Amino acid sequence: MSGVAIGIDVGGTKALALLVARDGRVLGEMVSQTPHDEGFGAGEATTKVLVEQVNELCERQSLDSALVPVGLGLPGMMRRDGHLAFAPNLQTAAGADLGALLGSALANASVFCENDANCAALAEHEWGAGRGIGDFVMVTLGTGIGGGIIADGQLVRGRSGFAGEIGHMVVEAHGAPCPCGGRGCWERYASGGGLHRLTREAALEGRLATLVERCGGEPKRVRAEDVTAAAAEGLDEAVALLREVGWWLALGLANLAAILDCGHFVIGGGLSSASEFVLPAAREHLAELVEGYDARPTITVTTSMFGPRSGAMGATLVAVEVA
Amino acid sequence: MSGVAIGIDVGGTKALALLVARDGRVLGEMVSQTPHDEGFGAGEATTKVLVEQVNELCERQSLDSALVPVGLGLPGMMRRDGHLAFAPNLQTAAGADLGALLGSALANASVFCENDANCAALAEHEWGAGRGIGDFVMVTLGTGIGGGIIADGQLVRGRSGFAGEIGHMVVEAHGAPCPCGGRGCWERYASGGGLHRLTREAALEGRLATLVERCGGEPKRVRAEDVTAAAAEGLDEAVALLREVGWWLALGLANLAAILDCGHFVIGGGLSSASEFVLPAAREHLAELVEGYDARPTITVTTSMFGPRSGAMGATLVAVEVA
Repeated sequence: MSGVAIGIDVGGTKALALLVARDGRVLGEMVSQTPHDEGFGAGEATTKVLVEQVNELCERQSLDSALVPVGLGLPGMMRRDGHLAFAPNLQTAAGADLGALLGSALANASVFCENDANCAALAEHEWGAGRGIGDFVMVTLGTGIGGGIIADGQLVRGRSGFAGEIGHMVVEAHGAPCPCGGRGCWERYASGGGLHRLTREAALEGRLATLVERCGGEPKRVRAEDVTAAAAEGLDEAVALLREVGWWLALGLANLAAILDCGHFVIGGGLSSASEFVLPAAREHLAELVEGYDARPTITVTTSMFGPRSGAMGATLVAVEVA
Repeated sequence: MSGVAIGIDVGGTKALALLVARDGRVLGEMVSQTPHDEGFGAGEATTKVLVEQVNELCERQSLDSALVPVGLGLPGMMRRDGHLAFAPNLQTAAGADLGALLGSALANASVFCENDANCAALAEHEWGAGRGIGDFVMVTLGTGIGGGIIADGQLVRGRSGFAGEIGHMVVEAHGAPCPCGGRGCWERYASGGGLHRLTREAALEGRLATLVERCGGEPKRVRAEDVTAAAAEGLDEAVALLREVGWWLALGLANLAAILDCGHFVIGGGLSSASEFVLPAAREHLAELVEGYDARPTITVTTSMFGPRSGAMGATLVAVEVA
């Protein structure tokens, strides 16, 4: 069986491995917990899990694991040489060259690494919601916000391979503190983490009175999930908060549209559970937030076609592209 | 004489035309006032002036104007087909196809159009401060902020040719109103116009007490030029205000570095008179404002090599590239 590759999306809590054919069909799937590398060299325990995944997926299809290209999608700033330079959500593997570790553990198979959101952008561009679109940005809304930029049909990698760190674009100078060390980063307002923060803020300010009451009158006990669930039931104050997240989402998309003149955004990641309210609000607000909106062709915002699989799927393209 | 081209940087108040050799030497120069097209069809009076410039520059060198490629650098959102879609600073020519008008007036010579800051980026990349650098952003600080993005050695044009509108990236949600219709755009803080606005604000807030006194005690009479002049003389309150502009400049540069992973910025435009204080402050603040700064190679910020000429010089490259 030729033309297949394995892509693994290595997240902070789990690793999703897919065996994918060149035409995008998923032939095998395996999910594992991402270990913490305490007591090991950087990345060793993680590498062990990844080796198991590769071997398992190959065995199921009677493939020689040394002959199947492997791509890794990793959260954080991936250097072009394969090193993970800065990864707040995968700290135990920071600095490790997972590609080299995995390659030697697999009898020197070809292993290539790329930022996870960049992988997602590649998958959506090749097979999904960005197919045939030369200029778009993949936006993954999870705890933070990841990004992959396609300009004129090509992934923008930047000088060191770090391009697409869109979640750390400051949209509120002197704003909310961010784990990156900065203040007012977009992801403090428009991600899952941002929803969590805005929920806390709104509860304390009395804008979630009904939800606070349901939580025994304790504002700090209202969680983002409560807001999402209540909005689905039609509670106005919850819908209003999700629409506020949508406004913040639109603000960052408008910035990207001004900078890159991308006509399309593909939204992925875990906040999609809130997409019923967040995305429509974002679409509405784009018109007032994008510079020269009326002089531009329509800007579209759609959800990812492959959802949580897009990172691992795109990682196979990185493997095939270089191999 | 082959291998020459004419580039014209058409600004809101004047048009600078240059005859440039392929190696970057400037062989001729002419500056004219940009007319206002009241009472004419969109762009007609402007076209008349541009024709005079082309003919004059060609006559001086005994060139046939029909054989010399002409490139126009225009302020605002240039569509890839040559139409000026959105140009707040050149309103009378908005919607005009200056390229087609000029082309037919010049016996169908080849005329090509591009955004002025994109032209400047091309010139600096080919001959100047961005030579040999694959990923950098040209930032022009004038009344507003223009931008030209070079990624992996190529100008990023975007879907319609509008990429690089970096001045309208929002850095302060709900911030100062901008002529574009938005609020909190970067150029309201870090451009010449931004300095003007911050001067007014600081004077009213009592942070420019000495300058207000020099202006007869009337805060509204303190101008940006007064701040620049007083800073050059060492007046602390003036230096502090210019350093504040430098902080805002660094904030936007940090955003661009996160999004694009560009390792270099070339600063041009009219605010360079203040660069003695603004740029050093911007360089200092970058370290605290760029996400994962320590994990990245050094980010450099230099001034444009060709100053006010870079737009017209780059316009010749647009002409030659397409011709």
